[in-house]
Amino acid sequence: MRIEILNTGTELLLGTTRNTHGTWMGQELVKLGLRVQRQVTVPDGEPIEIALGEAMRRSDVVLVTGGLGPTSDDVTRESAAKVLGVDLIEDEAALRSMREYFEKRGRMMVDANLKQAMNLVGADVLLNENGTAPGIYAPPRLGGEPSCAVFLLPGPPRELYPMFHSEVVSRLKALSGVEEVAEVKELKFVGIGESEFHERLDEELGQIAGLEVGYCARLGEMDLRLIGTGGVTEQGALRAREEFGEFLISEEGASLEEAVVDLLKRRGFRVTVAESCTGGLISSRLTDVAGVSEIFGRGFVAYSNEAKVELLGVQEKTLERFGAVSEEVAGEMASGALRVSGADVSVAVTGIAGPGGGSDDKPVGTVCFGVAVAGQVQTLREVHPRSRADFKTVVSQRALDLVRRIVEGRRLTSL
Amino acid sequence: MRIEILNTGTELLLGTTRNTHGTWMGQELVKLGLRVQRQVTVPDGEPIEIALGEAMRRSDVVLVTGGLGPTSDDVTRESAAKVLGVDLIEDEAALRSMREYFEKRGRMMVDANLKQAMNLVGADVLLNENGTAPGIYAPPRLGGEPSCAVFLLPGPPRELYPMFHSEVVSRLKALSGVEEVAEVKELKFVGIGESEFHERLDEELGQIAGLEVGYCARLGEMDLRLIGTGGVTEQGALRAREEFGEFLISEEGASLEEAVVDLLKRRGFRVTVAESCTGGLISSRLTDVAGVSEIFGRGFVAYSNEAKVELLGVQEKTLERFGAVSEEVAGEMASGALRVSGADVSVAVTGIAGPGGGSDDKPVGTVCFGVAVAGQVQTLREVHPRSRADFKTVVSQRALDLVRRIVEGRRLTSL
Repeated sequence: MRIEILNTGTELLLGTTRNTHGTWMGQELVKLGLRVQRQVTVPDGEPIEIALGEAMRRSDVVLVTGGLGPTSDDVTRESAAKVLGVDLIEDEAALRSMREYFEKRGRMMVDANLKQAMNLVGADVLLNENGTAPGIYAPPRLGGEPSCAVFLLPGPPRELYPMFHSEVVSRLKALSGVEEVAEVKELKFVGIGESEFHERLDEELGQIAGLEVGYCARLGEMDLRLIGTGGVTEQGALRAREEFGEFLISEEGASLEEAVVDLLKRRGFRVTVAESCTGGLISSRLTDVAGVSEIFGRGFVAYSNEAKVELLGVQEKTLERFGAVSEEVAGEMASGALRVSGADVSVAVTGIAGPGGGSDDKPVGTVCFGVAVAGQVQTLREVHPRSRADFKTVVSQRALDLVRRIVEGRRLTSL
Repeated sequence: MRIEILNTGTELLLGTTRNTHGTWMGQELVKLGLRVQRQVTVPDGEPIEIALGEAMRRSDVVLVTGGLGPTSDDVTRESAAKVLGVDLIEDEAALRSMREYFEKRGRMMVDANLKQAMNLVGADVLLNENGTAPGIYAPPRLGGEPSCAVFLLPGPPRELYPMFHSEVVSRLKALSGVEEVAEVKELKFVGIGESEFHERLDEELGQIAGLEVGYCARLGEMDLRLIGTGGVTEQGALRAREEFGEFLISEEGASLEEAVVDLLKRRGFRVTVAESCTGGLISSRLTDVAGVSEIFGRGFVAYSNEAKVELLGVQEKTLERFGAVSEEVAGEMASGALRVSGADVSVAVTGIAGPGGGSDDKPVGTVCFGVAVAGQVQTLREVHPRSRADFKTVVSQRALDLVRRIVEGRRLTSL
């Protein structure tokens, strides 16, 4: 079934209001085994009529949002009437429901609201319990050809979401019949690049008949999306797990910090963090996860040399001899953090976030990691020449992944 | 000039990745006095070709994002070649730039990356300093009719945003040939709500002829956007400054952390931070600012009670008597942080981020702040019942603003 979303609203194109309908509806439709073919956003006014006509010629269902309000720039209802070639008529039930809505809130219904009770002849009214604008459902062939079903839905999420669940889902299910529901799997990998993944597995995955493969590269992370029916997604996932299992952090959408916190809880490892160049970001990411207090009690932001000495017991002679950005200092930061916190595992980072402060020996982007667990300390050095913000993100990602790897007993290697 | 945005990527329609390009580009184009006519999102593959052809027939400029990566589902380049009817050819400069990108990072360039160096014959390559995928600019009439300019841009925001500023803006200006470019002012306010702003100033600003006024409410922040020509923007800005000057943190787009770091440097105040519920976010935001080391040497993430006692000298009896989330503990955290760090000003936060851990007395969202400077400690209590992530953001925003206000000698009041 070909589904298209049409979002209306000048504010969406000016960027003053974020358009979240596509993301939300996309997710809801996937749960029904349905896919969006296209999402179109147009400003209020005449463009709605044009875009709706185009969408109806391409699709079996068009989900329109916005433009059902009482003001002069709300013309979605009228546009649909023109495209479908049917009249608008006042709907008794819609009017009653609106009156009740206003009465309940002790507010006056004004004349401008009356047009919100207008329905397309032959269409269903979709009652709105969270606002004044009823929705409309025009079944296929209401206005002759093309044979496309149209939903007109309110724009505000607090009105749209409940209406989608109470009025739209059941109709979509009926329209789509008993097609085989597609299964979607998303595997999240950390510590491996998109191109390496591509090189080793893309061709093979491409040969699994009926499997749709997608990649999404993020900073220090790669998502593999598999879509198919009849077990082919699991077939693809199995191969990805075989080939890159040690880099796989989640199959249920969990973030790296969630995966790490979950792992630490399961293993009963308490963690601490000693941060120079990330300035608290690693600790902050860990504490984004509810319930982290079970395995995280404190973190150290040791930005200056004095702080590294005073908070973590880094030796002054180590700083002098190797410099603050060195594997030696990272190692002492990690073991010091472990010692003073009493945690079971620690990770330390010290690096040059830039834009200044680099040298030939240690260019901007240089970072040294220390990971300590039960008396053992390992260190690594990497270079990530990126913007300051991206550097911090990548380094925090690497640090969290090093914790994951050491707790899982895996080898630590530089990227 | 008719401008259309075409976003490509199956993940955008599945809802697994939020499409933020429309919002961001819409805002950037408004600053240039330009408007987006339509935004279309299509999945990877053949739909790109169809949608690009349609968009070119409707528009003077099409901004395409995504699908420039190395994997098999990245076909934007090939789609554009077909629609324009021109060949793809390997571009020397693009290849060299890509090789440098990989070399800098000590990574191997694989064959899959080669296709990223392919350019449309007669088009400009747009260099990408933040990723492997160069962009492409096809000027009007490159492929005969229709006469529409096409930009192919990378999908990841960290690559798209810098490329938009360095390569797209100047070309759009040339294409639009606007004589008098509208002046845009953005004033950023912290510590005041949008509705209060509306109440006191909206009507008056609306009466300045030729001034377009826009508001953008963010978490713990409000941006006022003024657009106009011939000095009306300054006229509007003047009134906003008069009315809300003490809440104004920047007029040049600086973030709150940048404004605070700048202020501390100018006043010669060294700062430290003691964080419980924000878990390092405040320190991390401070260290997002280059050169912060001049005024920031260390921060404390004291998540557990033991950490508050051991790192900051909070009295155990204070914890027992008032609980960890109390103004008393926040005050001791702030004065302890000042004492052990030797900084000139400190801010401490302790609160209940949720979703669990609330009580009737201290519901989820409760937060206590402590601010210490030269022997003086002030405390505040507020409630911000939000999601865990939003709570952390708002609390970090409030903490940074309290530092700003105390250093400026202003009164501290709860929101």
